Amino acid sequence: MAKLKIGVIGLGNRGSCLLDTILMFEESDVVAVCDRYRDRLEKAEKTVEYVTRKSPKKYADYKELLKDDEVEAVVIATSWDTHVSIAIDAMIAGKKTAMEVGGAMNVEECWKLVYAYEQTKTPFMFLENCCYGKTELLAAALAARGVLGEVVHCSGAYSHDLREEVTEGNRKRHYRLKHYLQRNCENYPTHELGPIAKILGINRGNRMVSLVSVASKSAGLKEYVNENKDRIDPVLIGKDFRQGDILNTLITCQNGETIALELDTTLPVLYDRKFTVRGTKGLYNQTLHAVFTGLSEGEEEVWTGLENSRKLINSAEKYEAEYLPALWREATEKDKNLGHGGMDGFLIHDFILRCIDDREMPIDVYDAAAWMCITPLSEQSIMAGGAVMPIPDFTNGRWMYRDRLDVTDLGTDK
Amino acid sequence: MAKLKIGVIGLGNRGSCLLDTILMFEESDVVAVCDRYRDRLEKAEKTVEYVTRKSPKKYADYKELLKDDEVEAVVIATSWDTHVSIAIDAMIAGKKTAMEVGGAMNVEECWKLVYAYEQTKTPFMFLENCCYGKTELLAAALAARGVLGEVVHCSGAYSHDLREEVTEGNRKRHYRLKHYLQRNCENYPTHELGPIAKILGINRGNRMVSLVSVASKSAGLKEYVNENKDRIDPVLIGKDFRQGDILNTLITCQNGETIALELDTTLPVLYDRKFTVRGTKGLYNQTLHAVFTGLSEGEEEVWTGLENSRKLINSAEKYEAEYLPALWREATEKDKNLGHGGMDGFLIHDFILRCIDDREMPIDVYDAAAWMCITPLSEQSIMAGGAVMPIPDFTNGRWMYRDRLDVTDLGTDK
Repeated sequence: MAKLKIGVIGLGNRGSCLLDTILMFEESDVVAVCDRYRDRLEKAEKTVEYVTRKSPKKYADYKELLKDDEVEAVVIATSWDTHVSIAIDAMIAGKKTAMEVGGAMNVEECWKLVYAYEQTKTPFMFLENCCYGKTELLAAALAARGVLGEVVHCSGAYSHDLREEVTEGNRKRHYRLKHYLQRNCENYPTHELGPIAKILGINRGNRMVSLVSVASKSAGLKEYVNENKDRIDPVLIGKDFRQGDILNTLITCQNGETIALELDTTLPVLYDRKFTVRGTKGLYNQTLHAVFTGLSEGEEEVWTGLENSRKLINSAEKYEAEYLPALWREATEKDKNLGHGGMDGFLIHDFILRCIDDREMPIDVYDAAAWMCITPLSEQSIMAGGAVMPIPDFTNGRWMYRDRLDVTDLGTDK
Repeated sequence: MAKLKIGVIGLGNRGSCLLDTILMFEESDVVAVCDRYRDRLEKAEKTVEYVTRKSPKKYADYKELLKDDEVEAVVIATSWDTHVSIAIDAMIAGKKTAMEVGGAMNVEECWKLVYAYEQTKTPFMFLENCCYGKTELLAAALAARGVLGEVVHCSGAYSHDLREEVTEGNRKRHYRLKHYLQRNCENYPTHELGPIAKILGINRGNRMVSLVSVASKSAGLKEYVNENKDRIDPVLIGKDFRQGDILNTLITCQNGETIALELDTTLPVLYDRKFTVRGTKGLYNQTLHAVFTGLSEGEEEVWTGLENSRKLINSAEKYEAEYLPALWREATEKDKNLGHGGMDGFLIHDFILRCIDDREMPIDVYDAAAWMCITPLSEQSIMAGGAVMPIPDFTNGRWMYRDRLDVTDLGTDK
């Protein structure tokens, strides 16, 4: 069996979790791990040894790993602000590159990423796991097969209470803290935007043209710090955080669709990506796992949200038998245990198989650039009081010619 | 008993419904009705006669009704584009004025409305019934009493499938049709914005400073017309509607809070106002009738929206005993039957009693102007590609000095 020799760069929370996932596949061979922190390196080494009974090479500097001829592919899960530069170096070094998500620091680094790919043609995949999510793929299939009619609007959120995670930053060496202290932007757009972009055919017959972003005041983290003094790094007490608590972004697409994104990470909330697709024939709503295509003959309208929610909740389930893509219809219990409810496993396995088979990547450098640039553009929009920011066309006009991907066979196409 | 002698102007769908509500109160005396259509006048006359055994005067021209010395107060429920001019004439004629909601045609008519009030000081109330809604008042009480912490963001929607109602416009003399054919704007912001503005203290210690609006393409109505040719006015077939299907508006307030509004009236959807209040200590969510203030000790985070929705649904119910304002806690079954689940009854009764007792109106001309101007400003923002539009301060700086209203005793204060 062909195996892909992989180096994992970045072994924090996300990297160590991805490492576990990578190790589950017989087509993978983790030959190297890399992190600037020794404890993480040693922990990763033990993990690899435990699963494979072989020792990986350990690198403190990713540039050394990139010089390692044995490494065929790298998975990059470092801090947000180093993803792109490492990915560029990896492509130049000829290592097949999988890059974790996050927002860009500025629009220019997105262009650099695209340029590096275009110069090297090294296979590149952006690791947006939610593109492999069960409900996102169900919604994509409903849209692709006409159940929702003409899609005019999509929305999603990253509703995830990260107050503890952010404020533990110094102690746990988590890069998020600096960003929350110093920036005010849609800092994590891709979990919702990725699957939406796939449904709307962004970079393939469609593109995002402009955005506006508006941020609420920042109150959640400061209050949280103040009320948890006993377990918070003292340097944070009394500090102002620049990141607004709720950040709304509205994007307009070339074909007239709109996209609404919400970042919601510093207030009490339960996890929800609020993925929603609205079409002329129906809607999909992830919060309720609902499909609605109109009242039945003779059915009465009800005038309260709660009663309607009760009616709608889990109504999408009955569409699963007919529309759920094969990847999920045939998922085993083991598949579903491979990280974030199975998404990570499907994502990583797909990357590995595509590297081995030399197939096109389904989430490419143009997707990465377009989705990641939302972060700096939202920052500039907010700084300018909600001004409209143009979104670059990283394909240089090729979006008009590139064929749409059928994402409903994602992970099962050959 | 003191009775208020009322003239009802505008007897279409909404006016005839309000007439029914007005007639339920012993403090009301409907002495005149007005509409340009004879059939509506006759129907209203019969309704009044049936309930009161007295005949109201009938006017085809509201200016004649305003000359009627017997009339002390008017309730205006005409088309959106005539609300303000009739209300101005009514205030000048010295008739206590209740004006139905809707968006303004331009910002200038909002200024005219304010000016007419300031010149005449005739009592004026804006009939935003959702300010008297049960869940909106529960959320207001939770916010006022600190359960939600510092409020940083509120959102709401008008999700209501009006495709049938809009396209029947010519046949049913419904003014909405022209607006959907010719305008593209947040045409109906007040049902969600009114209760939000009350919670945020807009015009009383706070104000709305700017907005941006973005519209999706318009596809819902055209497709609906095309697929229902047998029962649609033939002049509409093949027509383009200018109104986008989904319209998102983001408002920034002086004190740093943001407001997100969504207009959603031309696609398949079940009714929901999606009223949401986000604070540093918790949230209220109307779709789920949920309150969430954080995980309990030892409670595990769950990573899917659906599971969390199931957990949250109707979780606000247990807050009702302690926080639901008296108006609703003491509501009888009869009260709850007075229009839109009881809101209309509370609203109209409050207007009547305040007229009789000569008390200040809780939703005044400054509220009306601020909320209604969102419509033309959203139109201009969309026309300018999502540009930031400043929102006027109709109080002329007095928002800094005006005391906050305690809306939690709305309808029960004396």
